[in-house]
Amino acid sequence: MEMGRRDVLIGAATLAVTPPAALAAGPGRPMGYAIVGLGGYGLGVIIPQFANCVHSRLAAVVSGDAAKAKRVAAKHGLPDRSIYSYANFDRIRDNPDVDIVYVCLPNAMHAEYTIRAARAGKHVLCEKPMAVSVAECEAMIAACKRADRRLMIGYRCHFEPFNRAAMRLARRGAAGRVRYVRSEHGFVQGDPRAWRLKKAMAGGGSLMDMGVYSLQAARYMTGEEPVAVTARESTDRRDPRFAEVEDMIEWTLEFPSGALAGCQSMYSAGQNRILLMGDRGRIELEPATRYTGNRLWTGEDGREREITPPPGPGKTQFAGQLDHLARCAMTGSEPIVSGEEGLRDLRIIEAIYRSAREGRTIRLV
Amino acid sequence: MEMGRRDVLIGAATLAVTPPAALAAGPGRPMGYAIVGLGGYGLGVIIPQFANCVHSRLAAVVSGDAAKAKRVAAKHGLPDRSIYSYANFDRIRDNPDVDIVYVCLPNAMHAEYTIRAARAGKHVLCEKPMAVSVAECEAMIAACKRADRRLMIGYRCHFEPFNRAAMRLARRGAAGRVRYVRSEHGFVQGDPRAWRLKKAMAGGGSLMDMGVYSLQAARYMTGEEPVAVTARESTDRRDPRFAEVEDMIEWTLEFPSGALAGCQSMYSAGQNRILLMGDRGRIELEPATRYTGNRLWTGEDGREREITPPPGPGKTQFAGQLDHLARCAMTGSEPIVSGEEGLRDLRIIEAIYRSAREGRTIRLV
Repeated sequence: MEMGRRDVLIGAATLAVTPPAALAAGPGRPMGYAIVGLGGYGLGVIIPQFANCVHSRLAAVVSGDAAKAKRVAAKHGLPDRSIYSYANFDRIRDNPDVDIVYVCLPNAMHAEYTIRAARAGKHVLCEKPMAVSVAECEAMIAACKRADRRLMIGYRCHFEPFNRAAMRLARRGAAGRVRYVRSEHGFVQGDPRAWRLKKAMAGGGSLMDMGVYSLQAARYMTGEEPVAVTARESTDRRDPRFAEVEDMIEWTLEFPSGALAGCQSMYSAGQNRILLMGDRGRIELEPATRYTGNRLWTGEDGREREITPPPGPGKTQFAGQLDHLARCAMTGSEPIVSGEEGLRDLRIIEAIYRSAREGRTIRLV
Repeated sequence: MEMGRRDVLIGAATLAVTPPAALAAGPGRPMGYAIVGLGGYGLGVIIPQFANCVHSRLAAVVSGDAAKAKRVAAKHGLPDRSIYSYANFDRIRDNPDVDIVYVCLPNAMHAEYTIRAARAGKHVLCEKPMAVSVAECEAMIAACKRADRRLMIGYRCHFEPFNRAAMRLARRGAAGRVRYVRSEHGFVQGDPRAWRLKKAMAGGGSLMDMGVYSLQAARYMTGEEPVAVTARESTDRRDPRFAEVEDMIEWTLEFPSGALAGCQSMYSAGQNRILLMGDRGRIELEPATRYTGNRLWTGEDGREREITPPPGPGKTQFAGQLDHLARCAMTGSEPIVSGEEGLRDLRIIEAIYRSAREGRTIRLV
């Protein structure tokens, strides 16, 4: 087994996020984004990232808090006509500065705002999980197709250098034949009032939030689609945080090659890890999917070699993501993490919940 | 959360393997061991360990290979009357040099030689897994009880300093309330002719060998007995190594406290890890259960502090194990890893296989 920096560099040209035609055409004016939802993620994480973008700029904000929206707009030099409430959001159709709507709302609102954005003629970047049901995902895809608009899901790890390097190493067989993937994602969810703990807002518990990272990792590390899932859940219902949604859920995915993935998510302990085991070695990320500070190792059966991957497609994973959809919007090409990708995850998530409920393996076909 | 060297030292007096009464009585002459089976483990690993023991010495060898037995006996200064074949093994009853029989045979032979040893009036140390079925375990326990002899299972990790320190940290709540334990154990089983790959000899595949470490870890890290198990297996039956036994098996244990354990074993990739997650931090071992070179960390959600545990009860985990049963034999006390402990694991192992076969959760009560 030979794995190291050289391998990563060799693989750097693969998994390119920009089709050559688009690069040849060159970028036009930066695409204008409307950020829907000025919570911790939209306001705290995404808006500052436009400074790192090449093809994307902030063009509008949508919020239920008029004062906050005005403050953010002023700070970023947006005109008053680029401030929207949820009530007048559909008027965004008439704003030529806005090309793309980025839905940073609680999960249960993703479908409504994606569909309204598509009907307003805008491309959509929708945070993960895509929605709270398969039916919603299908409606979102149909709405974007009808409007001939691109739909992308905020799977930022596909733009994150360490995860991209791990995918390349896995795909080129650096660990041999993939036999097993393990992924654990969790954090201590402290505030019982958080929207993530409300069933009507979040659609579910840790699986709908951190579990999506574990599930995505299982799929992008194997490069396969699961054929069966078996799951168990454990939640302390006397804990006021978990009156409505699950704390901890563990599931096993079976893949056509015979590989298994053991995945987990929880809201009562911190964890953030991806491990691939092949018959000739392993590839490990820990922390795996953080905003910054992720680390990557390969080895025979331990963390023998630490890998420094080449830069990703953007200055940051967030900028790479924003610019990817901007370029897809310019060129009409399909995002690498499209609505269909989000729908695949929701199909599996529904089967995970069903398996845990019924205490049996659920086939996915 | 405060975890570090101090915590380990504070905890060092707990989990003592010798009851104070026994220590007060003091050791008599070293107990004589007969090693049954001169394979890689009995000959290569165990026999050299008597040099590290205080209360144990090599007193006899039992082998199907007369020349090998003679060679080993000569090297260790054993008289000819202390060499046995499987045919004349029962005559060990008349050998006053032998107090304890250590069964280092393939799994399917554990029950027979344990029962024959007990009938010959000897105490028994039996390698893990205790046997290949619950019924065999029950017969072994009954035979040793009838003969008033001690029965101990070769769960060496209970004598291994890093695992003992991890158990102490977990038990004193250093990571908070235990929510989750993860354990993965495997290696690349290369030789298709190995007895571990023959169903009649091994009783099963990776679960019966490496999986026992994962299962034990789940139990000694939580300190609880599981109430349900859900398992999935994946084996490439076209691979000549896996014509008879499973390669990879993944199972979830549910504990009365609500903690879950996600466990795994495999014969097609290397891994050796134990992770405990509590609501205030984690405890991690990797490698976890090797003969030497294990490492231990605590942290909030990563490997933040590496722990150097105090020495174990013996110079090595093997010597600690041998001397523990020697002292139990002297004092009549029960080993910390008794036949009942082995039986508990076999009950769970049978449920794991059943769950994987039937594709549903199996209750353990």
